[in-house]
Amino acid sequence: MTPAELEQLVAQIGDEILSRLHVPKAVKGEGLNIPDLVCPDCTGRCPQTCAQKTRDIVSAGADRVSASHRLTRIDAGIAALIDHTILKPDATESDIVKVCTEARQYNFASVCVNPYWVPKVAALLAGSPVKVCTVVGFPLGANATETKRAETEAAVRAGAHEIDMVINVGALRSGDADRVKQDIAAVVHVAHAAGATVKVILETALLDDNQKALACTLSKLAGADYVKTSTGFAAHGATVKDVALMRLVVGPGMGVKAAGGIRTLDDVKNMAAAGATRIGASASVKIIEATAS
Amino acid sequence: MTPAELEQLVAQIGDEILSRLHVPKAVKGEGLNIPDLVCPDCTGRCPQTCAQKTRDIVSAGADRVSASHRLTRIDAGIAALIDHTILKPDATESDIVKVCTEARQYNFASVCVNPYWVPKVAALLAGSPVKVCTVVGFPLGANATETKRAETEAAVRAGAHEIDMVINVGALRSGDADRVKQDIAAVVHVAHAAGATVKVILETALLDDNQKALACTLSKLAGADYVKTSTGFAAHGATVKDVALMRLVVGPGMGVKAAGGIRTLDDVKNMAAAGATRIGASASVKIIEATAS
Repeated sequence: MTPAELEQLVAQIGDEILSRLHVPKAVKGEGLNIPDLVCPDCTGRCPQTCAQKTRDIVSAGADRVSASHRLTRIDAGIAALIDHTILKPDATESDIVKVCTEARQYNFASVCVNPYWVPKVAALLAGSPVKVCTVVGFPLGANATETKRAETEAAVRAGAHEIDMVINVGALRSGDADRVKQDIAAVVHVAHAAGATVKVILETALLDDNQKALACTLSKLAGADYVKTSTGFAAHGATVKDVALMRLVVGPGMGVKAAGGIRTLDDVKNMAAAGATRIGASASVKIIEATAS
Repeated sequence: MTPAELEQLVAQIGDEILSRLHVPKAVKGEGLNIPDLVCPDCTGRCPQTCAQKTRDIVSAGADRVSASHRLTRIDAGIAALIDHTILKPDATESDIVKVCTEARQYNFASVCVNPYWVPKVAALLAGSPVKVCTVVGFPLGANATETKRAETEAAVRAGAHEIDMVINVGALRSGDADRVKQDIAAVVHVAHAAGATVKVILETALLDDNQKALACTLSKLAGADYVKTSTGFAAHGATVKDVALMRLVVGPGMGVKAAGGIRTLDDVKNMAAAGATRIGASASVKIIEATAS
């Protein structure tokens, strides 16, 4: 065997091993910005993100990784804004696994699921920077405060880092601001004690502008970390106008999450320009792939 | 003043007093079947049912009640089937009061509200035969079992007699029948200990026929009292075909509640003919007035 044949054989064996490990193979000689690299062909198959795998290979001593997969550069800043969300009631375990795999691959801010799935998601995201987000009093918000408190306790115990709770819309519309604030404060108290973040969903589709402003103020007074536009289950979701109003009322020190009906990269950019610092979306993969260069 | 003028004056004074009390005034000489009599003009204004007031007046010694209001005879059997329902998240206190007033007036089976409103509804219905019904894990069902248990505990403590819980649709569709059954059983355990009835909402719009049958069987095995078609928040509500399937699977010994999209008296009759023993509706007043003769 000639030295050239030997090198070719070694390369082929290397490629085969990498292929069986589902590892993306970098183009020879390309400068790699590893955290931004993803391999779209692997979506739903990689147990880890491609970037993480490539990083592992390199740190283990490899100085070249040959590639057959297409490599793309995505906007990590956009990915870090997105709560990758699946809240439909008929989501199955395989849907949940897929969403977690995608979140690890693209480094989304979090995976947002219904409470039943929190233990599963916490296990699937363990060791990754992606947070576990869940919902409380969702999507109607018309629960007893003690139930929201109990649901929050169960969620943080099961591994949730972020709690998206729905305000009591009916109490707000009945003029009972104190009850609305106490309801939020009860969730905040439990969540913060466990180091978890609270986003307060106003369900803007059901409120007039005065009520939206009041809900923002009550959320801030109750110590919440974010206000959030929508559940995705009402007549409409986030609007640029509502996000701007919410940012105006809460000021620069609080988060604003836009959610509901956000399906494109332009939607994300428009919401961010209006003041959103977090985005809830289920079309996250399509959105992030639109940033690929 | 002649005796005739005196009688006329007395009658006018009597009418005025009854009018200020919002009491229906019966037509002279008509035989009254008081429990079936209602005064549609009073809807939303009477603090008690017209029938009850008439009964009170008669039992206090009146032997005639003159009438200007129209009196109608409604079908008490239909009224007794209906859970008079208001589950929209933006329902206000005045909406809740109105629904309770209507329920007392027509003797509906129950008033069904979101959990936050249970204490208010329990107070408004106190002393009437109308039950307090609420929802648990509603409308998505994808909560932790411990949260459903806590929500049931809070509901029965606050005065709920009937608990309409949503099954874990995602777990069912993931093939995890044991989890679905345990989830139902946890709610049944708490509710039955407090003497409350449990209806299990399958959300048929999200299930195929095999899954509907399985959900019925699991509900029965878990000791629930009713199976119920829908939340009213999915793509469609009750269908005659689903009600018939559910009645077939659970047999004659269990209740079947049809809910979601039931808007007319014909809808109610069709569902009852297919096997429904309870109806969830928000158009209950329109339905029951269609039975008036």
